[in-house]
Amino acid sequence: MKNLSIGMFDSGVGGLTVLKEVRELLPHENIVYLGDTARVPYGNRSPRTIVRYALESALFLLTKGIKILVIACNTSSALAINILSRKMPVPVIGVIEPGAKEAVKATRKKRIGIIGTKATIKSKAYEYSIKKMDPGVEVISKACPLFVPIVEEGLQDDDVAYIMAEKYLKEIKMSGVDTLVMGCTHYPVLEGVIKDVMGPYIHIINTGKETAKEVKNRLQIKGQLRTKGRGLCRYFVTDSPETFREIGSRFLREELSRIRYIKSLDYKDFILS
Amino acid sequence: MKNLSIGMFDSGVGGLTVLKEVRELLPHENIVYLGDTARVPYGNRSPRTIVRYALESALFLLTKGIKILVIACNTSSALAINILSRKMPVPVIGVIEPGAKEAVKATRKKRIGIIGTKATIKSKAYEYSIKKMDPGVEVISKACPLFVPIVEEGLQDDDVAYIMAEKYLKEIKMSGVDTLVMGCTHYPVLEGVIKDVMGPYIHIINTGKETAKEVKNRLQIKGQLRTKGRGLCRYFVTDSPETFREIGSRFLREELSRIRYIKSLDYKDFILS
Repeated sequence: MKNLSIGMFDSGVGGLTVLKEVRELLPHENIVYLGDTARVPYGNRSPRTIVRYALESALFLLTKGIKILVIACNTSSALAINILSRKMPVPVIGVIEPGAKEAVKATRKKRIGIIGTKATIKSKAYEYSIKKMDPGVEVISKACPLFVPIVEEGLQDDDVAYIMAEKYLKEIKMSGVDTLVMGCTHYPVLEGVIKDVMGPYIHIINTGKETAKEVKNRLQIKGQLRTKGRGLCRYFVTDSPETFREIGSRFLREELSRIRYIKSLDYKDFILS
Repeated sequence: MKNLSIGMFDSGVGGLTVLKEVRELLPHENIVYLGDTARVPYGNRSPRTIVRYALESALFLLTKGIKILVIACNTSSALAINILSRKMPVPVIGVIEPGAKEAVKATRKKRIGIIGTKATIKSKAYEYSIKKMDPGVEVISKACPLFVPIVEEGLQDDDVAYIMAEKYLKEIKMSGVDTLVMGCTHYPVLEGVIKDVMGPYIHIINTGKETAKEVKNRLQIKGQLRTKGRGLCRYFVTDSPETFREIGSRFLREELSRIRYIKSLDYKDFILS
């Protein structure tokens, strides 16, 4: 059981910022990562489509031998965590709750800002999660749809990143929050810009980091932590492995290897192939 | 035969700028439009994936009764026109060749600029098409990946549109072209910005407009032009009709109706349903 992998999925490369944190905290673990790059981005899609994609991804990872499933995507976590938790035979961890928990712990003024894709913000998943822990906290949310393409184009140090950050974060900054949750796995790549715009006194929460802690916690409780050997990472993608390698290496800040293309996430297709 | 529809497909809403031109030129024609919004955008996907998606879209439209097929998407036109022309039982028109033809006609200095998505630019489809008509023309190309999300977010009048246009168009402007092809169906929404940045002496080619003329031409030759009655437009989308209506209405500058959701473009699925 210990030697089974940690399964992680995302719509594309974004979840690699979560994988990075998991690997830093749990270097002995094997990881299977699925990037549904043929259908990225999920952020502007409808809830029913996102739920269907999440189920397909989870089923695929189950066939690879996993002991825990991490939804390394805020949009999918927001919309599909309940159904996946009910349907999967292994524990399921999303990125929302760990991020929300840390934010509630960090805030003094009881004012938390949330940024993410349209679908994540519209789902109010962070808001619900935070209010469940502390109904007295006020949440100010803002969708930042241009952040993902900016990151994917490698423009995180460009003027355009600052201009859009100023525009998107203006309201949240004015609202006097002391804590800001980066509610999208792409955003840690923009952490420098976001910190510059928000100023030095604002806690910036990286949900990937908090999720990694939660994964460790859950595996420890079940006695399923792997304690020796170097963990291996394998990657599966539904579109070009080359593009994934190129952009992914920028996210992980190292060369990616062991990337395999899978043609379809249709259960009928991959279970028979 | 005349009463059959003009079939058009695109990865999403972009092709509506082509539909707009077709409808203006051919108001009596019925149009069936398919937006594969569950899998948009195509621009950064691999060639094999784009070809597969194009085949699926074309097959779907065939089942709706069409007399001509318009690939209202530059990326799909660039990569899939040959295979579709071979495999379809109706004439197939892409947006590349009509745009290229008009550009060759317009240029005096024999220097043409092309802007589009990464996949379109990488395919060199405009370059090949132009050189085939006139090998003496020099082509300067530039991918502008942030233009699509800027348009889809309705930021076409925002600073960010001007900043990115200045950045993307700088080289092309310096290279002394007198003609610029908007090689992406989203770009006509940015035509004002592009004109401002390029200056008043540059011909800007809207490939949708040229494609509409080509459709008229082909139908006329075959005696298949519908000459009376008001044409109806029907829309099919693979994700939320609401989002399509909202963004699409901005593209067409009028309210869209008759939008139907289809769950899958898998041939097995829609042929049996």
